[in-house]
Amino acid sequence: MRLSQYFLPTLKETPIDATVVSHQLLLRSGMIRQTASGIYSWLPLGLRVLRKVENIIRQEMDKSGAQEILMPTIQPAELWIESQRYDAYGKEMLRIKDRHERDLLYGPTHEEVVTDLFRKNISTYKDLPKNFYQINWKFRDEIRPRFGLMRGREFLMKDSYSFDIDEENARKTYNLMYQTYYKIFLKMGLKPIALRADTGAIGGDLSHEFHILADVGESAIFYDKKLEEFFEKNANLQDFDIGELQKIYAMADDLHDEKNCPVTREDLVSRRGIEVGQVFNFGLKYSQAMQASVMGMAGEKIYPNMGSYGIGVSRVVSACIEANHDEKGIIWPKPLAPFRIILINVRSNDENCTKACEEIYQQLQQQDIEVLYDDTNNSLGQKFAIADLIGIPTQMIIGPKSIANNIIEIKDRKTSQIQQISRFELTNFININC
Amino acid sequence: MRLSQYFLPTLKETPIDATVVSHQLLLRSGMIRQTASGIYSWLPLGLRVLRKVENIIRQEMDKSGAQEILMPTIQPAELWIESQRYDAYGKEMLRIKDRHERDLLYGPTHEEVVTDLFRKNISTYKDLPKNFYQINWKFRDEIRPRFGLMRGREFLMKDSYSFDIDEENARKTYNLMYQTYYKIFLKMGLKPIALRADTGAIGGDLSHEFHILADVGESAIFYDKKLEEFFEKNANLQDFDIGELQKIYAMADDLHDEKNCPVTREDLVSRRGIEVGQVFNFGLKYSQAMQASVMGMAGEKIYPNMGSYGIGVSRVVSACIEANHDEKGIIWPKPLAPFRIILINVRSNDENCTKACEEIYQQLQQQDIEVLYDDTNNSLGQKFAIADLIGIPTQMIIGPKSIANNIIEIKDRKTSQIQQISRFELTNFININC
Repeated sequence: MRLSQYFLPTLKETPIDATVVSHQLLLRSGMIRQTASGIYSWLPLGLRVLRKVENIIRQEMDKSGAQEILMPTIQPAELWIESQRYDAYGKEMLRIKDRHERDLLYGPTHEEVVTDLFRKNISTYKDLPKNFYQINWKFRDEIRPRFGLMRGREFLMKDSYSFDIDEENARKTYNLMYQTYYKIFLKMGLKPIALRADTGAIGGDLSHEFHILADVGESAIFYDKKLEEFFEKNANLQDFDIGELQKIYAMADDLHDEKNCPVTREDLVSRRGIEVGQVFNFGLKYSQAMQASVMGMAGEKIYPNMGSYGIGVSRVVSACIEANHDEKGIIWPKPLAPFRIILINVRSNDENCTKACEEIYQQLQQQDIEVLYDDTNNSLGQKFAIADLIGIPTQMIIGPKSIANNIIEIKDRKTSQIQQISRFELTNFININC
Repeated sequence: MRLSQYFLPTLKETPIDATVVSHQLLLRSGMIRQTASGIYSWLPLGLRVLRKVENIIRQEMDKSGAQEILMPTIQPAELWIESQRYDAYGKEMLRIKDRHERDLLYGPTHEEVVTDLFRKNISTYKDLPKNFYQINWKFRDEIRPRFGLMRGREFLMKDSYSFDIDEENARKTYNLMYQTYYKIFLKMGLKPIALRADTGAIGGDLSHEFHILADVGESAIFYDKKLEEFFEKNANLQDFDIGELQKIYAMADDLHDEKNCPVTREDLVSRRGIEVGQVFNFGLKYSQAMQASVMGMAGEKIYPNMGSYGIGVSRVVSACIEANHDEKGIIWPKPLAPFRIILINVRSNDENCTKACEEIYQQLQQQDIEVLYDDTNNSLGQKFAIADLIGIPTQMIIGPKSIANNIIEIKDRKTSQIQQISRFELTNFININC
């Protein structure tokens, strides 16, 4: 993509209404714009990141055996009356009347719709287990939307719902999702941490929250420093021992008890985290309330044991920025970067520079590398500032000196380290690093 | 995917409330289920088709130079008051009040939001032209939703919006989109036809509707039989002469004048069509009303000339079925098929059959072929009925005879032709046909 044609309205100044750094950087880097309070439009750069988050989730959910479906954003009130949550849900639910005065709502979650789908289409124990997921927009009418995507009203969520024949199998599914969530966040290049949690409005008896460690996180977290060793060991692994992981102490502020903590003071780390996901087992709550049963082996009626599993897809984008930035801008982990390389033409008005850049740009595209080519007439200072702001992992810098010596200057956004490679080494560099 | 684990609730009987064949087949083949009047959930098989439609649109829109963004489903009323469409739009607009009694709506279209985005972020002629597109859910509160996805309330749409410096450039963009739409539908394996159309509520002076030819279409269409020759010639071409195409006579019922028609009676074809897209040029209507101007070369104020371009993504799925089915079920064109091959185990309780099927299933997966493997204990009659119903283009049938002779029986869903290939020819068959 050529920057001269790309819709990337970056801002030099920090918008005054943005108080947290992720919100500031999302606006400044031209990723999102507010359309109404807590409601955002995604511009091209932001949408690329959102899709990367989505796709990593989709891959791992598919691998886990879950099946993707897509439920509507607008739901009929009857289903919520049946589950007895319609009145209980309160003002966060966006309630709507259609032209025939029928009660609808914009789904804040989908337990009711999926349970209805299940009871109408699955009738025998032979069809269990099932785990359905979707990635779709939800709406919660927050009283005071703030922090950009962190507490928006319309937000993208991956939600999944499992149906098992009994509690033992449901527990296995729960553990599989727990493990899948770790894989998802590690694959994104983030540092996840699972904490025992309350079940709240969803109901049930077993739940964990998944947080991303970030200095400005909303929650205080205490954990055994073994967890950091675990991250280092498993950041690039896709198969790890969930048992080993679950044994490591990690607790939210409200449940952490200093006196009875099994971890010594020197081994205990205190950090902050941003919640990006939650897993629940809620047993028979919805299957019983909504009469979603299957026939068992002996013809008996069985209510499936259910769980639900959410990831705030748009929230992950914010959390990632909170966890990965410096004073100059965003530092994308490679798996979520909107582009892999930004190619900077130091002198756009120099024929030789432009010719070399065009050649490298073509070569990168032919190798299927996602590249943003800064072919604008901006000053070099502006070009570097924008490159640092939008946080693309690798900057390739082409100027008169590099052309004279037939080299490419490569700067790592994260470490600021600069290396020079020969033009002939480019393919090799890409094969090793991209 | 193994059918024994796949959520595919097919129906033998035709649901009584489904009056058109696409609605019947969508339900019978387990692709969608109704959640509320005109509001559907997409099950795994249906979602696969929907994504194929989306991806073909995305590829061609990207190639045309349009940039993907994502605007929210919920919009603030103010923008529509500003464009003077808030009252005019009537009851099809789903109007909502949030917890603070602010007026919101579920977007039936996005001219206002995109024009607002434009005026806040683009200020100079140097940034033109721009063409933004999104693929997202819209809501129109139809008084009588019917025909399944054909006239639903919540529906998936690709909408794009172009901004050009003047009318001449806007006309070029219009023609580019016109051509892109032909490419999109031809690439899907469909037969599109563009008809001059009224501009209606969107406003403006130039518009074409795109229809898919189908016997049960809602509109009568008259065209020169040259168009069918054009389809034959260009079905597999990605570059064709738009001038040649636009010269061929094609007219909707209401604009067709038998007396003054330039086509002779023998050359005139009368068919029916289903509308799946529309392109508009509406000039300065929104840019002026919403004060979305840019600064020109001499510092003057210029209102960009705008166009909008829609495709009913979920509607395409219905239209495709209307145009491609027989009495047994759907016949997917290959580009939209949910799976490329269905592998049918004739005797699931036979060890040799199952072993052979498992081997072929692994091989197909390794070659990245999308394959649905019917490993169920259903009767052979049921297996064939389901395969024909869900319309996967190629059926591979493995039974005791094929094992004895080391062959694979291959049936084409569309022609019903059966051929036998040697097991050793499988890779070759896939390379040539898939």
